[in-house]
Amino acid sequence: MAEVNIESVVQALKSIIPVGLERVALHEPTFQGNEWEYVKECIDTGWVSSVGKFVDQIEKQLAEYTGMKRAVAVVNGTAALHVCLKLVGVERDDEVLVPTLTFVATANAVSYCGAIPHFVDSSLTTLGLDPYKLESYLKEIAEVKNGICCNKKTGRRIKAIMPMHTFGHPVELEALIPICEKYKIQLVEDAAESLGSFYKGKHTGHWGKVAGLSFNGNKVITTGGGGAILTNDEELGKLAKHLTTTAKIPHHWSFSHDSIGFNYRMPNINAALGCAQLENLPRFIKEKRTLADKYEKAFSGIEGLKFFKEPAESKSNYWLNVLMLNKSDQALRDAILEATNKQGIMTRPVWELMHEQAIYKFCPHMPDLSGAKEIRDRLINIPSSPFLGV
Amino acid sequence: MAEVNIESVVQALKSIIPVGLERVALHEPTFQGNEWEYVKECIDTGWVSSVGKFVDQIEKQLAEYTGMKRAVAVVNGTAALHVCLKLVGVERDDEVLVPTLTFVATANAVSYCGAIPHFVDSSLTTLGLDPYKLESYLKEIAEVKNGICCNKKTGRRIKAIMPMHTFGHPVELEALIPICEKYKIQLVEDAAESLGSFYKGKHTGHWGKVAGLSFNGNKVITTGGGGAILTNDEELGKLAKHLTTTAKIPHHWSFSHDSIGFNYRMPNINAALGCAQLENLPRFIKEKRTLADKYEKAFSGIEGLKFFKEPAESKSNYWLNVLMLNKSDQALRDAILEATNKQGIMTRPVWELMHEQAIYKFCPHMPDLSGAKEIRDRLINIPSSPFLGV
Repeated sequence: MAEVNIESVVQALKSIIPVGLERVALHEPTFQGNEWEYVKECIDTGWVSSVGKFVDQIEKQLAEYTGMKRAVAVVNGTAALHVCLKLVGVERDDEVLVPTLTFVATANAVSYCGAIPHFVDSSLTTLGLDPYKLESYLKEIAEVKNGICCNKKTGRRIKAIMPMHTFGHPVELEALIPICEKYKIQLVEDAAESLGSFYKGKHTGHWGKVAGLSFNGNKVITTGGGGAILTNDEELGKLAKHLTTTAKIPHHWSFSHDSIGFNYRMPNINAALGCAQLENLPRFIKEKRTLADKYEKAFSGIEGLKFFKEPAESKSNYWLNVLMLNKSDQALRDAILEATNKQGIMTRPVWELMHEQAIYKFCPHMPDLSGAKEIRDRLINIPSSPFLGV
Repeated sequence: MAEVNIESVVQALKSIIPVGLERVALHEPTFQGNEWEYVKECIDTGWVSSVGKFVDQIEKQLAEYTGMKRAVAVVNGTAALHVCLKLVGVERDDEVLVPTLTFVATANAVSYCGAIPHFVDSSLTTLGLDPYKLESYLKEIAEVKNGICCNKKTGRRIKAIMPMHTFGHPVELEALIPICEKYKIQLVEDAAESLGSFYKGKHTGHWGKVAGLSFNGNKVITTGGGGAILTNDEELGKLAKHLTTTAKIPHHWSFSHDSIGFNYRMPNINAALGCAQLENLPRFIKEKRTLADKYEKAFSGIEGLKFFKEPAESKSNYWLNVLMLNKSDQALRDAILEATNKQGIMTRPVWELMHEQAIYKFCPHMPDLSGAKEIRDRLINIPSSPFLGV
């Protein structure tokens, strides 16, 4: 534990935080734009619910910002991922490859399809799914027959892979894509944390067939609760809208449904909040990147840990900033967590690994998950609200 | 078609509608209370999302109003029903008895559990599940072995039954309960349409183990999108909260989950809207009951149809008012629908029957569904917003 001077970590954090602020959250939203005006318009006109102009508008704004053909607004990020998996054809008893280092929603979305998450390792350079380890692993366990990827050990179909852009840092997509193509595995991007993050000049979400965003209260922008499905495939975009709105066949009064759909539409009042938030997204990203620069400097002189920088070829939203200890050391990590939280500075470790959770212990996983374990033992999230970068 | 004077139906409707109103919706919300104040408070304080005082407050207000021990606010009515089924133990490949005459969410909630909806008939006196036909049917197809109800034909477990209080009119619960007890079938009330409806002096939701409410934009009160789970079982209430908030084990920073939970929490901004709406619920119900009285009088002199009155022993919220043709006649029904909608008065038939939908055709159902078919062929929903009863 002597390898890091904990007090200097606390002081480095304090140097970023405005004087007089007693408690600093990990991430909190800023409402300084048209939030009031748009939300009030919903209440004044009575259009708060399933139909309304702000739902159309947020979908248009999202498509424009990300450069994608279609965005479909939904009730939250988990719902977005669930429907993304349905859209690429995940069915009951399929396997879906997901990182063991992720928020539980990634794995749960697989379970909601009646499918089985199959956990893979993460990379220390991106914090996301490691494509090189994946390739060796698939060589060993997978075979493609009649265009279908089969897990030789379980006999089940491996239908899709859902890498997650951890804390906004894009996965190494260019290495991943040829593997997906070779093994006939559908690529779904879990972009819940990466609105505003770009890989090789394109917004995250462009690389998979579909992608899911989240606008939860702690995200870069918030709609209260909300999310979106992104796609460049017009037909899939239409299907996404259809499936998330109970799959009702359009008719002025008759109620017929052609699929088992979902009640996943984003209410208009939440969309109104989101439209105003999106107008300020470029500012939020700028402030968050400035904050990342400040943190990098503040921690540059401290021995034993360093500030995590965006991977090569990526421009990250730095959703949640990351400190990495130089070595795996849970005791040191926890001592820093204790000291900072005690001072009113909210910090957090990464999630517990999925393959170690009681609910997912029975699922298949790579035998070697050392990358994810190392990240878990070394990583600390630190306060990341845009206003800290102003 | 000659049996009803369509023009007199249009005139009876017009006699209720304020002069000068060009279009009348089936049901629209009224925001004349503290909606803006509460929503503004969320935006001003930054508490719009998953935690906040209005979520706690709406749960308290709902429990008080309904007289139930616990209410858990969720993202919509469909989510409420899905979790209700989980709470009573519905598992993959179970059967759940549901009326064929219902909105698709009832059947979909069953499908989300990986279970199979099994469709039963409805009664012309309540518009909801017919307990007498159910009893005869179960005598024929069900047997109880070791406390488990089994469908003798399919070999599957019949775990639960989910009657729906159609348009706010309570199902004949006292006849239903002994059947559920005899056959060891869990009773879940689909109360999506019946907030403010009472059966034998108790709010709907008191009779099953759990119940689901909806606050969609067209309901008696709205939260944009939203719903709630009601229960008198404290432990089930706690479990409902746990399952709808990703089943995370409480800890100040660690993320462990003990079930495959859901991201179904109601955002604080939606709860804020709901708190204000609930304050006015008694007024809305009063106005809606006054509207029902007005309709009853307006249609009393018209041959060939009548206004549908609440069933015996019930006090209904009259969510969507109902005209019933004296005889099954889809052509007449459609002619009235055409004439009224053409005049800007929104009217609608009931939903297509579930057992006839392409997606649920393969599911088991009672051979005799004549009650539901008759309701479908005779029923017309007419405008029901509270302000029409002022």
